Amino acid sequence: MRISYQEVCDVLVRALLKLGFTPERASLCAQLFADTSRDGVYSHGLDRFPRFVRGIRKGLVDVDATPELVLRHGSLERWNGHSGPGNLNAHHGMERAIALSRQHGIGCVALANTNHWMRGGTYGWQAADAGVIGICSTNTMPNLPPWGASDPRVGNNPLVIAVPRPQGHVVLDMAMSQFSYGALASYRARGELLPLDGGFDSQGQLTRDPTAIEASARPLPIGYWKGSGLALMLDLMAGLLSGGQFTHQIAADPEEESKLSQVFTAFDLLSLTGSEAAAHLADQVIQHLQFSGGSSEQVRYPGQHVLETRSENMARGIPVQPSIWKEIREIGE
Amino acid sequence: MRISYQEVCDVLVRALLKLGFTPERASLCAQLFADTSRDGVYSHGLDRFPRFVRGIRKGLVDVDATPELVLRHGSLERWNGHSGPGNLNAHHGMERAIALSRQHGIGCVALANTNHWMRGGTYGWQAADAGVIGICSTNTMPNLPPWGASDPRVGNNPLVIAVPRPQGHVVLDMAMSQFSYGALASYRARGELLPLDGGFDSQGQLTRDPTAIEASARPLPIGYWKGSGLALMLDLMAGLLSGGQFTHQIAADPEEESKLSQVFTAFDLLSLTGSEAAAHLADQVIQHLQFSGGSSEQVRYPGQHVLETRSENMARGIPVQPSIWKEIREIGE
Repeated sequence: MRISYQEVCDVLVRALLKLGFTPERASLCAQLFADTSRDGVYSHGLDRFPRFVRGIRKGLVDVDATPELVLRHGSLERWNGHSGPGNLNAHHGMERAIALSRQHGIGCVALANTNHWMRGGTYGWQAADAGVIGICSTNTMPNLPPWGASDPRVGNNPLVIAVPRPQGHVVLDMAMSQFSYGALASYRARGELLPLDGGFDSQGQLTRDPTAIEASARPLPIGYWKGSGLALMLDLMAGLLSGGQFTHQIAADPEEESKLSQVFTAFDLLSLTGSEAAAHLADQVIQHLQFSGGSSEQVRYPGQHVLETRSENMARGIPVQPSIWKEIREIGE
Repeated sequence: MRISYQEVCDVLVRALLKLGFTPERASLCAQLFADTSRDGVYSHGLDRFPRFVRGIRKGLVDVDATPELVLRHGSLERWNGHSGPGNLNAHHGMERAIALSRQHGIGCVALANTNHWMRGGTYGWQAADAGVIGICSTNTMPNLPPWGASDPRVGNNPLVIAVPRPQGHVVLDMAMSQFSYGALASYRARGELLPLDGGFDSQGQLTRDPTAIEASARPLPIGYWKGSGLALMLDLMAGLLSGGQFTHQIAADPEEESKLSQVFTAFDLLSLTGSEAAAHLADQVIQHLQFSGGSSEQVRYPGQHVLETRSENMARGIPVQPSIWKEIREIGE
């Protein structure tokens, strides 16, 4: 079933008010969830809302908590998220990094003790909408075996890089595993093999069988040893800069995962290049990527699919799973 | 044959003086080349020196040029490399980013019109030696087909992230292709297949045959679409922040590749955490990575192999190819 964007927002707001959010915070939190489903990332939008609610009810997420500035050194700030709602905390982190970048050219906010930020790309789009280059990353619970091990010692720490472009921002939002568990479940449900090796089976052989990877819990890091190393570096940065937890200290259970560490960095382009010139240059790069030398092979850029889905879902309504929609509506009744 | 570190430096200095470097710049440039071979990255150390010399003789590299500050906005600076020696320019870029981070918590230098920086990891080790977290990246000529195309439209833009740790810095230095052309040549020379798919053959099939990938010029981006997207983002950042060239504007010939764009960012850890505390935390993360839960599978961290090679090469001398060593010595005579 499809529900209009406005109705999705309204229903989410009612649920969040019942859960104790103030009206202003309920409105932003609802919008961030709705935007995520609107953009086609259903797994981190409405489909994730029930787990978010369970976190609130368990006390992992404190609906009233707001981030607190702990330490400032020029344009680098450390904040304590006090276990507030992850998407509100992250939105604040990027907002503050953007403000710092306006003042200092570059700004960085490191945020400790926060919760799952839902879709990482959200904060990339936020930065690009503000005309700055945004980079952010979060750590996660240990859920990815590094190259050379079969047990999960690193996190599937997503990395987001966003560059503004009026014709459509360029937003890379990538986790460190080749396929997410959500993607594995989708392939399994459709009875399909993965298009490429996605992990190891229980015998330690590379496989395209999603069920075998779910069973072994050994998804493959992108680029094997390279993505494994990048996941480690992102965790080191998040923990050291924020003063918060590292992956190895985070509860290794998706229902208990909390007190994450995140980093938000913004680079103010306007002061360097001027917005029109920057837009023109970014567009030239994308044009060249897409239509190189008369080749008929058209390449997609990061974020392109999001805009296509956004446009379709705004026109036709956002696809929602009836059972999840019913659950969310009942919270607000 | 193996040559002592000191003799390698001395011979390089003599060659660089003949090429017109001032004594001070010859000394640093020689050290950067020698350190790279000492650390086992021979392809970007002495083995690369003859191409560096050809660049000077062709006028692509101006031995006297030094970077010039073009624009400053707080802790974000734009510099013009004026086609100076790539490793000297890059060393200056990271040095300046470190200085900015001491003052502002975070510092960023974007450098246009520079030359190949040789080993990217050099500037990561430089940052970590200074006790800061360093991130840097460069664009390159178009030499990597993005996911979905068979012609090279993006660069194999390396990304370096370094975190200080007194027991051994953690330094990730990774290009966007799964295997470098240097690695492909090594496997070919040994008559071996790659351990994993490394690119496409001329029929567009994934292959482990290094010769087929060299022939098609279609190495595989790490993580397929993910590394392809990351390469694009690094190019966008480098060009937009520095005001210099993007990959699609750079001459697509290794002998003519010049006027690159680079970004150096430093995060001052000392002001946040204190050096001892940061060192302890980073070490805990590495200990956990290496020796998790009694598993016998020991995982290597990024940079570990460099330190082992460095130690061996300092003790036994640096391995050099006799023909290249002869060529370098003759330049200085």
